[in-house]
Amino acid sequence: MHTDFCFSFVIICVHPWLIFLCSEILMNIIKVNSVQREEMIDITREVEYVVGESGEKEGVCVLFTQHTTCGLTINENADPHVKSDMLGFLRKLIPQNYADFKHFEHNSDSHIKSSLVGSSVTVPFKNGKLLLGRWQGIYLCEFDGARERKVLMALR
Amino acid sequence: MHTDFCFSFVIICVHPWLIFLCSEILMNIIKVNSVQREEMIDITREVEYVVGESGEKEGVCVLFTQHTTCGLTINENADPHVKSDMLGFLRKLIPQNYADFKHFEHNSDSHIKSSLVGSSVTVPFKNGKLLLGRWQGIYLCEFDGARERKVLMALR
Amino acid sequence: MHTDFCFSFVIICVHPWLIFLCSEILMNIIKVNSVQREEMIDITREVEYVVGESGEKEGVCVLFTQHTTCGLTINENADPHVKSDMLGFLRKLIPQNYADFKHFEHNSDSHIKSSLVGSSVTVPFKNGKLLLGRWQGIYLCEFDGARERKVLMALR
Repeated sequence: MHTDFCFSFVIICVHPWLIFLCSEILMNIIKVNSVQREEMIDITREVEYVVGESGEKEGVCVLFTQHTTCGLTINENADPHVKSDMLGFLRKLIPQNYADFKHFEHNSDSHIKSSLVGSSVTVPFKNGKLLLGRWQGIYLCEFDGARERKVLMALR
Repeated sequence: MHTDFCFSFVIICVHPWLIFLCSEILMNIIKVNSVQREEMIDITREVEYVVGESGEKEGVCVLFTQHTTCGLTINENADPHVKSDMLGFLRKLIPQNYADFKHFEHNSDSHIKSSLVGSSVTVPFKNGKLLLGRWQGIYLCEFDGARERKVLMALR
Repeated sequence: MHTDFCFSFVIICVHPWLIFLCSEILMNIIKVNSVQREEMIDITREVEYVVGESGEKEGVCVLFTQHTTCGLTINENADPHVKSDMLGFLRKLIPQNYADFKHFEHNSDSHIKSSLVGSSVTVPFKNGKLLLGRWQGIYLCEFDGARERKVLMALR
């Protein structure tokens, strides 16, 4: 798991009523390698690191996955059974071999899970720290691994 | 079986440390007290109030819950049966006593619902008003109450 | 049973009152006409067009639907069976005629699907192009058509 930096600067016109000194969009990418078909991979530390290094004091962190058979979610970071319970339940609820599926890649279950969990999460941050609750972690939900996945980060 | 607003408490807390009047971002917190295990609590008014008071003319309002057994969603604000139908259906679909769940807190159903519904909503606003559709309300979805919940607001 | 784009209409409406070229935020609206009860309508091109025309180089594009019986999602843009598999599976999972539903409009299934899929998507963009993955398309998920739907766009 490694992170590449790419700083972008946007010069924002001075609005008569509002003062923008210089709003900076920072975009970044986090690469995640899954090793199983279904897996929840904690990427909180990697995201925290980029937010901390960015120099941005406060704003909103958008994470976006560029794939259609995985998702991003926020859930408990303590008991690992939360992850296995979730993946196990979704596997039963949306079976890969569901009789009516016609998609030739045989992974319609992964596409459906991806849309239900969602392709992005948005987390406010302050003083270079994500404003996560005590038990919250950020997860890439792999539903059709093993693969290399890319998560875009945009800080504003 | 109605899970209505009347027994729930919503408090807007204007935290001095969380408010930044630098025109770049405004953060705030809304506290919500649920009184049942499963409940959809309408927080639209509270969000509208903060947006209106912020002085921000237009932008995007991000709401983010700092918990892993509740969610945020936007749905109908008219017939209360929409809420009870949704909570009742999810209760049947993802039962608390599902045999395969192993999480020691016995609330894996709540964690799963939380990830499916999502931990944040994003709503554009203009002239100090949320650009919600006529029938849209913003709900905190309690899946493991009764508890005090915190919803962060970030306006940009 | 295909629910394809060819019979749906997507119109970009550049509302003078909704566009703000003050560099603070650009808002726009996309109108979508569905023609079936359940349908996934690809709006990627329309969104790309507005992003390209906006003059904004980089930032985050928020799409928000002002309705409670449709949703927005990102999923595969190649094999149309992905769409029909998803809609068919959700139709079986959350049946319109579910015995316990009490909502008088008989579309609680649509409201539930709307909350599970979500009312918004957020996509970073750079150099006037959405940073979508190769196989990603943006879809309005119609769950209670045929209707005219409005999707708000906010670029920051």
